Amino acid sequence: MIHNFTTDHQVNHRSIRQFKDQSLTAEQLTTLYEAARHTSSSMFLQQFSILHLTDPKKRAAVREISKQSYVGANGDLFIFIAVLYRNQQIRHQLGNDDGRLHTTDIFMQAAEDAILALQNALTAIESMGLGGVVLGSIKNDPEKLIQVLDLPKMTFPILGLQVGIPDQEPQLKPRLPLDQITFDNNYPRNFNISELKNYDQTVTTYYDLRDANKRIDSFTNQINGPKLNQHESSRDKLLQALHDQGLALN
Amino acid sequence: MIHNFTTDHQVNHRSIRQFKDQSLTAEQLTTLYEAARHTSSSMFLQQFSILHLTDPKKRAAVREISKQSYVGANGDLFIFIAVLYRNQQIRHQLGNDDGRLHTTDIFMQAAEDAILALQNALTAIESMGLGGVVLGSIKNDPEKLIQVLDLPKMTFPILGLQVGIPDQEPQLKPRLPLDQITFDNNYPRNFNISELKNYDQTVTTYYDLRDANKRIDSFTNQINGPKLNQHESSRDKLLQALHDQGLALN
Repeated sequence: MIHNFTTDHQVNHRSIRQFKDQSLTAEQLTTLYEAARHTSSSMFLQQFSILHLTDPKKRAAVREISKQSYVGANGDLFIFIAVLYRNQQIRHQLGNDDGRLHTTDIFMQAAEDAILALQNALTAIESMGLGGVVLGSIKNDPEKLIQVLDLPKMTFPILGLQVGIPDQEPQLKPRLPLDQITFDNNYPRNFNISELKNYDQTVTTYYDLRDANKRIDSFTNQINGPKLNQHESSRDKLLQALHDQGLALN
Repeated sequence: MIHNFTTDHQVNHRSIRQFKDQSLTAEQLTTLYEAARHTSSSMFLQQFSILHLTDPKKRAAVREISKQSYVGANGDLFIFIAVLYRNQQIRHQLGNDDGRLHTTDIFMQAAEDAILALQNALTAIESMGLGGVVLGSIKNDPEKLIQVLDLPKMTFPILGLQVGIPDQEPQLKPRLPLDQITFDNNYPRNFNISELKNYDQTVTTYYDLRDANKRIDSFTNQINGPKLNQHESSRDKLLQALHDQGLALN
């Protein structure tokens, strides 16, 4: 592969979950924002925003939803939001109707805007020698989260991002090999679990080195376990929460 | 803001839609793949893959769906796919059921994996002095696209990415100002279109410089126009196409 300042950071990406007790400087914050702002936007609709949570009560409330102690602890917490509210207001104030804003198509475009921008924000953070972690866990209870953030209709929280000065040096987590995730022209229909034998061993070794006292699980065992097993989950309020916000109705 | 090799590229991002007649080198291709592979993955489920379309017939078929002449023309075309198929197969081959794989929650996690990885791929491309454009247009007809790509159930095409050696130097497209997309703690409910007066003027000037012969539209006029107006669209087959693939069923 071709090595440069950017790609070297990319292939050395670790999620950082422990930060020093220090917030971003104003310049670092602006850099994160500007990187996000210049991200590609679907059909130039610009349907995302970033909520920076500095209020200790809101941070604690999001932490409680995410059930992860590092969320809203040291460092800075951001919520990337799909925002169809702005475009709805523009249309209303120009005397028009909501048009296609309630479709699944337009919601997904907004979600794409927010997610692409988040990756750019994280890339900017890592380029400055800082670290971060993407937080899917904020959606553990989507209805509660919308209530806590007091979000208007036609907006939806997509992902969180916790960033700061790293206070840990985790190992690089082994990913599926390229031949499992890149294909020419055809997606193969003949996946056999035996293809992951070596990878499972690599993952097991990784966990063993990380914490010898913790139960070690191969990749395929994780996939076969509680993460994906059927269970009652407030995460399944997602679709209802989207609909309640006026989004992805058809 | 803080300037470095990475953030300078980020704030100078332009979508490139015209490429020289040359494909990525093997090394450039690997770099794109490795950047994507090391992207954060929701719950370590690793639910995405990249399809590299080199077959002229497939490229032409995707171009026809996207209705954009540069799609699958010069340069390289990639389709970023949400892949729940792999994890379904792992569970089946270990004697388990599908678990939560058909939920909207788990589909969205897969889509997030694919979208984050795509931004990382584009960032890697731009760091190598190449250019690219994110293709939402591949979903103009989701059912047709799935058919053309011959995708198995439990997979779904999320976004395309066309990359290559730039053969144009477009102006930087003006984005909404930071005070419209970044907020502390509360998302404001009092948006007034008058806040966008200056921005509208900036966008109009941008289009005027880009092509003096083309109709010039401010941002708010675009939002108030055909893009979001109600109309019959094969893009609205999205939800049905997802369901047909076994995804986001509840």
